[in-house]
Amino acid sequence: MTAKNIKIALLGFGNAGKAFAKLLTKKQEEIFNKFNLNVSVVAIATKSKGCLVNEKGIDLISALNDIDKFNHFNKNRNDYTEISSMEIAKNVDYDILFELTPLQIFSGQPAIDHIKAALNRKKHAVSANKGPIAWAFKPLRDLAEKNNVLFYYETTVMDGTPIFNLADETLKFCKITEVKGILNSTTNFVLEEIAKGKQYDEVIIEGKKRGFVEEDPSMDIEGWDAAAKTAALLNVLMGANITPLDVDRKGIEDITYEQIKDAEKRGNVIKLICYGGIENGKVIARVKPEEISKNSLFASITSTTSIVSITTDLMGTISIVEHEPEIEQTAYGVFSDLIRVLGNMNN
Amino acid sequence: MTAKNIKIALLGFGNAGKAFAKLLTKKQEEIFNKFNLNVSVVAIATKSKGCLVNEKGIDLISALNDIDKFNHFNKNRNDYTEISSMEIAKNVDYDILFELTPLQIFSGQPAIDHIKAALNRKKHAVSANKGPIAWAFKPLRDLAEKNNVLFYYETTVMDGTPIFNLADETLKFCKITEVKGILNSTTNFVLEEIAKGKQYDEVIIEGKKRGFVEEDPSMDIEGWDAAAKTAALLNVLMGANITPLDVDRKGIEDITYEQIKDAEKRGNVIKLICYGGIENGKVIARVKPEEISKNSLFASITSTTSIVSITTDLMGTISIVEHEPEIEQTAYGVFSDLIRVLGNMNN
Repeated sequence: MTAKNIKIALLGFGNAGKAFAKLLTKKQEEIFNKFNLNVSVVAIATKSKGCLVNEKGIDLISALNDIDKFNHFNKNRNDYTEISSMEIAKNVDYDILFELTPLQIFSGQPAIDHIKAALNRKKHAVSANKGPIAWAFKPLRDLAEKNNVLFYYETTVMDGTPIFNLADETLKFCKITEVKGILNSTTNFVLEEIAKGKQYDEVIIEGKKRGFVEEDPSMDIEGWDAAAKTAALLNVLMGANITPLDVDRKGIEDITYEQIKDAEKRGNVIKLICYGGIENGKVIARVKPEEISKNSLFASITSTTSIVSITTDLMGTISIVEHEPEIEQTAYGVFSDLIRVLGNMNN
Repeated sequence: MTAKNIKIALLGFGNAGKAFAKLLTKKQEEIFNKFNLNVSVVAIATKSKGCLVNEKGIDLISALNDIDKFNHFNKNRNDYTEISSMEIAKNVDYDILFELTPLQIFSGQPAIDHIKAALNRKKHAVSANKGPIAWAFKPLRDLAEKNNVLFYYETTVMDGTPIFNLADETLKFCKITEVKGILNSTTNFVLEEIAKGKQYDEVIIEGKKRGFVEEDPSMDIEGWDAAAKTAALLNVLMGANITPLDVDRKGIEDITYEQIKDAEKRGNVIKLICYGGIENGKVIARVKPEEISKNSLFASITSTTSIVSITTDLMGTISIVEHEPEIEQTAYGVFSDLIRVLGNMNN
């Protein structure tokens, strides 16, 4: 049987996109052996580094090399072009769109429109960008169902750690009644450092140096990142149909050294906890600093490690922990969605 | 389309079998709606409470009532009979065999032979009994593959918490390089109670009363139960092809209050840790009490809560925690395997 060609388009080629491309080059043969499918990348869009479009398949190794060396695609390549990511989403001939552009936390755009464009064309879509899941999950899922195409987004919460996949594939017939997590490593790091007696400003400067804190730390510190993840989790797992604005949100900006020490005296630590549950038949969502026992499972989640606990009607509560992920785990998340599409696209 | 009938046979009707039967009665309609399949139980074998065989489907509610009231099936039922579980495995007309008999920890029998009988007849098999997975996984899996039938065993480690399912369905293309766990709640309980200054004998008596300790506690205390779970995990997840005898095993029988207090002074606790890894290209397996930091994830796993950490080449390390399971979570494990068979049997 002749192998079928599967053409994929990557919108965004930052750290996640590059790591995914690297992983893909290593696994193309294994994918071929398993599915009898030739996966090739036919388009890569970036905002400031040029684009590549090549219906025969882009040479990923040289594309990665160009970016590493020159921080820009080589303008002399035959497949070099300068078009927008939306033009690629709308016009290039691909089978699966990968939305890997940077998060716009207060709108989810233009990622939502990229994915809509793909789904409207009856193409499968994978999002590593949590914006669309936090802001527009229901319409996107409904559109995918209507057009009978697949839409996956495992990477949007806890990288490649199976959460959505876990619920879909391993907790069948379970109804999820509660979700709880520690999902923001910046706040985890900052609280731990303040507990050591360091000043807030000093911690932020050190965190930036060590890569734990973004250039503008407010999205993390004020709980917006955690709220977006909470909205994404609850939209998918509990059918919440909410946005980050619906999350009752409080960040860690007001937590002081004294509060942490007082909590310590009570045998507790302070963590930024994400929570979703059901009250009066409605999903409620909350992100706020909470005092929890220092002997508890959640207290053991430090630094860049994260956790989600899922409570169900049939299987009680299970928790899943991701340990100090690197960019390779983000790449695996995107890759696992690709594999899921390949496994399900002909069903 | 007319619904197809799926006939299942239950070998064993102890707590797990009864809880599964209860869950099944509640979910038969949902299964019908999802798969267009009528699932009925056509045989139930017990060792000392009689058997039921009924090709039209046993009335599970009355069967459960009889056992609850009389601790025996009603001999006046039309479907009452007294045959062995092996005769059922070999001769009754069923589609899926459920091995739910008590564990024989040093042989895995007669459960292995029950499953072999089913697989030889090209019937699907589900085991909640870890004996066959710890003692004979490879031959059983090979037999199932040869005969193109399904063989699942999620419940054998951590009840219905997805571990084997997690690896199969959500960690595709990953190679598992290390497995670590706390999997025996008796030893967890005993170590915690001894840490409080209680005497070993006193803890065992109290544990028996509270249901944490078996009538003969030695299988737990000496690490045999943990070794069987470790063998099962490594046979499935790492292709180890070992038995519990191959696990380098040390129980907690020699751990003293003084040792626990000394560990505490170093900021540590003692836990019975299950471990599997690769050394010189070979899977090695170990169960032994280890001193670990009291702030670590594993230290937070107390009482009947359990954990498995899985390290992979592509997805780093993830851990999954089951929180204080009840018998319903065992039932869900068996049920989830049934659902997996129903979902995959026609593929």
